[in-house]
Amino acid sequence: MLYLIGLGLSYKSDITVRGLEAIRNCSRVYLEHYTSILMAASLEELEEYYGKPVLLADRELVETGSEQILKDADKEDVAFLVVGDPFGATTHTDLVLRAKRAGIPVEVVHNASVMNAVGSCGLQLYNFGQTVSMVFFTENWRPDSWYDKIWENRKIGLHTLVLLDIKVKEQSIENMARGRLIYEPPRYMSISQCCDQLLEIEATRGTKAYTPDTPVVAISRLGSASQTFKVGTIEELSQYDSGEPLHSLVILGRQCHELELEYLLEFTDNREKFKNDVAADQEYFKPAAWVPPTEEDSE
Amino acid sequence: MLYLIGLGLSYKSDITVRGLEAIRNCSRVYLEHYTSILMAASLEELEEYYGKPVLLADRELVETGSEQILKDADKEDVAFLVVGDPFGATTHTDLVLRAKRAGIPVEVVHNASVMNAVGSCGLQLYNFGQTVSMVFFTENWRPDSWYDKIWENRKIGLHTLVLLDIKVKEQSIENMARGRLIYEPPRYMSISQCCDQLLEIEATRGTKAYTPDTPVVAISRLGSASQTFKVGTIEELSQYDSGEPLHSLVILGRQCHELELEYLLEFTDNREKFKNDVAADQEYFKPAAWVPPTEEDSE
Repeated sequence: MLYLIGLGLSYKSDITVRGLEAIRNCSRVYLEHYTSILMAASLEELEEYYGKPVLLADRELVETGSEQILKDADKEDVAFLVVGDPFGATTHTDLVLRAKRAGIPVEVVHNASVMNAVGSCGLQLYNFGQTVSMVFFTENWRPDSWYDKIWENRKIGLHTLVLLDIKVKEQSIENMARGRLIYEPPRYMSISQCCDQLLEIEATRGTKAYTPDTPVVAISRLGSASQTFKVGTIEELSQYDSGEPLHSLVILGRQCHELELEYLLEFTDNREKFKNDVAADQEYFKPAAWVPPTEEDSE
Repeated sequence: MLYLIGLGLSYKSDITVRGLEAIRNCSRVYLEHYTSILMAASLEELEEYYGKPVLLADRELVETGSEQILKDADKEDVAFLVVGDPFGATTHTDLVLRAKRAGIPVEVVHNASVMNAVGSCGLQLYNFGQTVSMVFFTENWRPDSWYDKIWENRKIGLHTLVLLDIKVKEQSIENMARGRLIYEPPRYMSISQCCDQLLEIEATRGTKAYTPDTPVVAISRLGSASQTFKVGTIEELSQYDSGEPLHSLVILGRQCHELELEYLLEFTDNREKFKNDVAADQEYFKPAAWVPPTEEDSE
């Protein structure tokens, strides 16, 4: 059996009882180690907690070395651990497909991930649109395809969850070119850097998918003991010191109801200003909710 | 301390280790009992598993009796258990706000919910738009505000998660009018009924937010041992016997990539037909991805 087991967001004890029981019966345990990190536990702590060694699975191993992971999984139990839930990233559906085709039964043990736990900022999950990723800009590479997606979401009143880049076990271009397996220290994007990149692209594009005054929610260390929420405008949070990783950002849509706003106001010292900022941003799309026009539309 | 603890989707052991540890220190344990059900465990099994009594919290208690839930929670630990994750429904942010205002510290223990575990059907969570709820139609009440939302999602290529109505501890209109506390047996919407209602409203509206040939994914008993996925068109799945509850449905958007489609094809006996159905449905929005036009748009 191949078990895909979500570890949840932060603590080693965020694993489910069922997940932990499964691990204890496994002969090999892999930990996916490139799309996220478990904030409150080190590898050694996990190994002690599980009572067995944990093998780190980097991108190469997962994307090209799946035979190694799946080896003998038809005869014994193998666990593949993923921070959050196993179905955040496509590569894991790839692993499931390979297992199925090799006749290996697969069992998934779900857990919380940022995709649903983001609801703890008080905004209804129902009103989120597509999720976007914000990658670290480099001198020559400043991808902005997320801009249109934010725009599409906001046109129909929806919030946008922005996932902030993390770089774990990345090579510099020079080291990669020279084939040297030397890895850069891990990097995690901060809220202020994300807001800076948002402002830069809006300044270039200028089509007002959002403005410097658009309200956002900074979510730091979600699900950990030091979890912090902070609300403000993009401009304001470009000056915000968000502290230790991991961070995510929510760009507000029009669909922010009274109780949701009330909840968000707990996360600012300047409640009046934020209330006004939300009202002004909503005004931009008023009076009516925006509905995409089409020729067939006779309503 | 007030603990809001997610129970996950199905098994009693889907609770996290941290959640279980918290419950064991609580003097009172409530189980939210009107928005969802835990599929694989009865109340008695939960009580035995936790080693203490569990109080069922119905809508009345949660929405109007929060003093009772929060009583003494400043001096002792109280757990409020929610199937899935605590932040699926707004009423629980309300409970958190009340606790905070009463000076009661709150800790949230997240877990998987349909909102993220739906990723196990193989579609990327990134490409889901707003979520809609499908309620049971009655003779005089056939609400269809979800229709525009599906349309908005599909116009920008996004999938729509449709949550199917459940009725737990509901009164008949007659009993309610007479003030009799007699409750109807629980009801859970099936995939075929959901598809019938989709077809009915499309026939009335006729603006082709989707058609009878639009591909959908039926998700039954997500996260349980008998979890089942089935793909087909809305028309086809209106004939599908989805078995025991709970069910959800995903209406496909244009953003269905090759690997995702390959994964979905595992859930049909007629791969060729489904592949063609997906291609035909995508064609409807081609060639270019639809982008909402505006006056300011100079691109």
